[in-house]
Amino acid sequence: MAAELSVPDLIAKHRPTLDQALEAIRTRAYWSPHPEHPKAYGENGSLDAAAGKAAFDAVLNTRLDLGQPGTDDWTGGEVSPYGIELGVTYPHADADVLLPALKAGQRAWRDAGPETRAVVCLEILKRISDRTHEFAHAVMHTSGQAFMMAFQAGGPHAQDRGLEAVAYAYAEQVRTPDAAEWTKPQGKKDPLALTKRFTPVPRGIALLIGCNTFPTWNGFPGLFASLATGNAVLVKPHPRAVLPLALTVQVARDVLAGAGFDPNLVALAAERPGEGIAKTLATRPEIRIIDYTGSTSFGDWLEANARQAQVYTEKAGVNTVLVHSTDDYKGMLANLAFSLSLYSGQMCTTPQNLLVPRDGIRTDAGSKTFDEFTADLARAVDGLLGDDARANALLGAIVNPDVKARLEAAAGLGEVALASREITNPDFPDAVVRTPVIVKLDGARKYWEGADDQAAYMSECFGPVSFAVAVDSAADAVELLRRTVREKGAMTVGAYTTDPEVERAVEEACLEEAAQLSLNLTGGVYVNQTAAFSDFHGSGGNPAANAALTDGAFVASRFRVVEVRREA
Amino acid sequence: MAAELSVPDLIAKHRPTLDQALEAIRTRAYWSPHPEHPKAYGENGSLDAAAGKAAFDAVLNTRLDLGQPGTDDWTGGEVSPYGIELGVTYPHADADVLLPALKAGQRAWRDAGPETRAVVCLEILKRISDRTHEFAHAVMHTSGQAFMMAFQAGGPHAQDRGLEAVAYAYAEQVRTPDAAEWTKPQGKKDPLALTKRFTPVPRGIALLIGCNTFPTWNGFPGLFASLATGNAVLVKPHPRAVLPLALTVQVARDVLAGAGFDPNLVALAAERPGEGIAKTLATRPEIRIIDYTGSTSFGDWLEANARQAQVYTEKAGVNTVLVHSTDDYKGMLANLAFSLSLYSGQMCTTPQNLLVPRDGIRTDAGSKTFDEFTADLARAVDGLLGDDARANALLGAIVNPDVKARLEAAAGLGEVALASREITNPDFPDAVVRTPVIVKLDGARKYWEGADDQAAYMSECFGPVSFAVAVDSAADAVELLRRTVREKGAMTVGAYTTDPEVERAVEEACLEEAAQLSLNLTGGVYVNQTAAFSDFHGSGGNPAANAALTDGAFVASRFRVVEVRREA
Repeated sequence: MAAELSVPDLIAKHRPTLDQALEAIRTRAYWSPHPEHPKAYGENGSLDAAAGKAAFDAVLNTRLDLGQPGTDDWTGGEVSPYGIELGVTYPHADADVLLPALKAGQRAWRDAGPETRAVVCLEILKRISDRTHEFAHAVMHTSGQAFMMAFQAGGPHAQDRGLEAVAYAYAEQVRTPDAAEWTKPQGKKDPLALTKRFTPVPRGIALLIGCNTFPTWNGFPGLFASLATGNAVLVKPHPRAVLPLALTVQVARDVLAGAGFDPNLVALAAERPGEGIAKTLATRPEIRIIDYTGSTSFGDWLEANARQAQVYTEKAGVNTVLVHSTDDYKGMLANLAFSLSLYSGQMCTTPQNLLVPRDGIRTDAGSKTFDEFTADLARAVDGLLGDDARANALLGAIVNPDVKARLEAAAGLGEVALASREITNPDFPDAVVRTPVIVKLDGARKYWEGADDQAAYMSECFGPVSFAVAVDSAADAVELLRRTVREKGAMTVGAYTTDPEVERAVEEACLEEAAQLSLNLTGGVYVNQTAAFSDFHGSGGNPAANAALTDGAFVASRFRVVEVRREA
Repeated sequence: MAAELSVPDLIAKHRPTLDQALEAIRTRAYWSPHPEHPKAYGENGSLDAAAGKAAFDAVLNTRLDLGQPGTDDWTGGEVSPYGIELGVTYPHADADVLLPALKAGQRAWRDAGPETRAVVCLEILKRISDRTHEFAHAVMHTSGQAFMMAFQAGGPHAQDRGLEAVAYAYAEQVRTPDAAEWTKPQGKKDPLALTKRFTPVPRGIALLIGCNTFPTWNGFPGLFASLATGNAVLVKPHPRAVLPLALTVQVARDVLAGAGFDPNLVALAAERPGEGIAKTLATRPEIRIIDYTGSTSFGDWLEANARQAQVYTEKAGVNTVLVHSTDDYKGMLANLAFSLSLYSGQMCTTPQNLLVPRDGIRTDAGSKTFDEFTADLARAVDGLLGDDARANALLGAIVNPDVKARLEAAAGLGEVALASREITNPDFPDAVVRTPVIVKLDGARKYWEGADDQAAYMSECFGPVSFAVAVDSAADAVELLRRTVREKGAMTVGAYTTDPEVERAVEEACLEEAAQLSLNLTGGVYVNQTAAFSDFHGSGGNPAANAALTDGAFVASRFRVVEVRREA
């Protein structure tokens, strides 16, 4: 049984955090209530490292009974990219029973209003935060992220993104007041007077379709945005990354019940191997909102077919870094090497194409030819990953065989500037750990009509593969960047240049094609990282994603406002 | 040549109005800067009645040359529902020339920023306001509205809706600051520090597809929301209601040019008879936003096929008034009679189905049987329209032969409680003027399986036709209301009841089906009227419309935010 939670207590406890989040999304300065350091946990009810590990171990090889109605079977089968079988089974639901159950509590949840919904969401996030160490292992052993990344990106950063979504959802709902007195003068006659009440109402049931690589980070925004706007949420995790979202559902159900709401407002839809329930669920009339992260093909299918729903997609893109000139060559190489290596390039934000003038680049260490630059970058990656322990801590594991196959095939696409190496993970000998490959290609305009090079660099090659693409000039690079974003989409764009004109041209291309741009990063911030409350993740304006995390557009259509007016 | 307009002057002139509009959408109290009374015009540069009429007369039988590029021909042919031929011809455009021209000025318009765009939009609205008398005649002679309605709904009320859209667009864009300094502590190490710039960028070209009955009122919100968020706007008017939007385009182009922007940011796409260019334009890749008011079939087509665009539709619905009980029988009858008569019921908000318990209703004038109520309502309409001059002033003219045909067919659908009468308009003998018909139908559950009555009341019968539908009980009425909204959509719902339980049930149905509810209106406010800055027009949550006028969702997806970040 969940402890009883009083709504006034939750408001007293969480309203200050909500207010800080509201201020953060207004100023977009740095802010986070979720500590990044593993040692920050272990007090005030949060699990420390040992307790988190123990909690994770305790759930392995068990049936995770969420107490959901309509459970007709149990299903599971996750195998960690680090080699261990999780052995957890989850409820398999009869949708015809579960969907009505999701609806049942919606009226009370709607009537609770935006502030109560927000603080209940914040309590869910707080309890997830307390279990960050446990979640870190769950994310690590489903995504293949190295522990520290699973801890930070899957823990505090994901929680930040969830909280950011709650803040946007709250702000959007309270833009319209609860009530208004409307009095219209009529000259000498009595004024017309109406009393109006405004109620944010949910769309219905939201479906969250989770991804393999960032189950919490990419899942929390949609989940919390929908829940905070009054919708019930059905969570359909990626079959290889169920546990982090199943634990999330468990916490959410517990908090909802504790606060007096129907726990079935949040439920899990785990599937049998090969069942493909996302398609079936996505077109059910009860599903009115869908959040999806994954392949372009299924994202496009959802946009075209789930017409009864508001569909928010993050799909694939081809991320470009334009390398023109720098006054910190060493810093640039180190920054790029880290970006290419982090999580074996398995981030939707990892750069893929490095566009470099074939005549070379100007740097504080002298001019560098295209070949010199690629050789230096290869050395920088080698240096970064030279120590196996450090390499394992940065690379994590290859998430699935498809990524491994792409990596292996990439070496055949052109001249290899840096070959991929196998790394052994002493703790997890079955983990597939690989360093990135860098392949040289030619992006000259004459190839644009169909040469193989273009086929390579104009497709997303998800994983630790990047292409150093020789171009004729900075102008050509900008043109190719623009074309890549327009045709293929991009979650991120990077550029290195000391030339104000080139900088302006890159900026203009990004403004026109709606791509998020990082300029001249040489320190400890990387093009593939975004911070909640400040950075937008994606723009929603190019083919990589139809939504951004998080802005007004991400929340505004998740609810509607119903007005009831009567004479005053 | 337009007079030169300085942006600082425009800000000084219009910022106070913008601030008041921002405050109005926050409080939703009564506010309007646009006078409703015809006599309020004639000073400070605005046209009085005579000058407005003269301006309208002067444009008749002329070529309205907007100076648009790509004009390959001239087209026209509007015939007023009052019988006169307007004789105005408009530029017919080669889309392959006009669309690139619309794009050309977009960068400067984007760089101008939200405040400049807002005040330029407000200057356009101000100049339209000054010409309200001229627009009134243009609206009257395209929509068939009576003069006073064309004046108010087509003038100040439409201008209010445009200004409201500008206010929402401005507020949405400035939620994210122009710039932010982001500093993340790193323990004992130097903090990470980034400088970030945020720019709202337009989606591309917006297409406004206008309607016949409310060219300005339904057209201004999308036009101004798109323009204020940095998009160029192509205006495709209904072929029978070109003039009001052509004049709007003319004013917009004049103001844009005067303020130093490319006038081609707003252009007209008039079509040849039967050309059907809306379909062709709507699927052009350059068109990224569409606003549409009209038939459900074409709205559904747009939503399904214009996949490259954000599509905002207002389609058809079946509006219901539940009549259960009242403590002001006379007021209720007068209010309903007015609602059914105004503009011959040719409003998307006009009630169609009056659901009445067959056992009758309780009123302050005693119980009334279903038949007594319908007879009393018929008498109230007769009384309201008994004087021909008053009838003409309220009814306006039937907008097209389809409406007339539906009206004539309606009498065959059931027992006629009130027959439609022909009225002569002495000023315009060719105008088709008709009083409303009220037909009695039976809504008993036994009919739900397919009786003719249901076929009638479950379809939109646009025009001066309403159905008094006998139901078994208040509960059945609520159930039928709910089903009607869910299946057919509704722009408005009304209810009369003195019973708190019935009231609650109706409210709950409207909250669950996302319909806007007016309760117990017996005075000078009518269910078919909404006031900008306070009332929402539609909800966007039922099949009648996928958007509401105006809320955050109506503007938030018309632009995207691009971030450029660099090390501080």
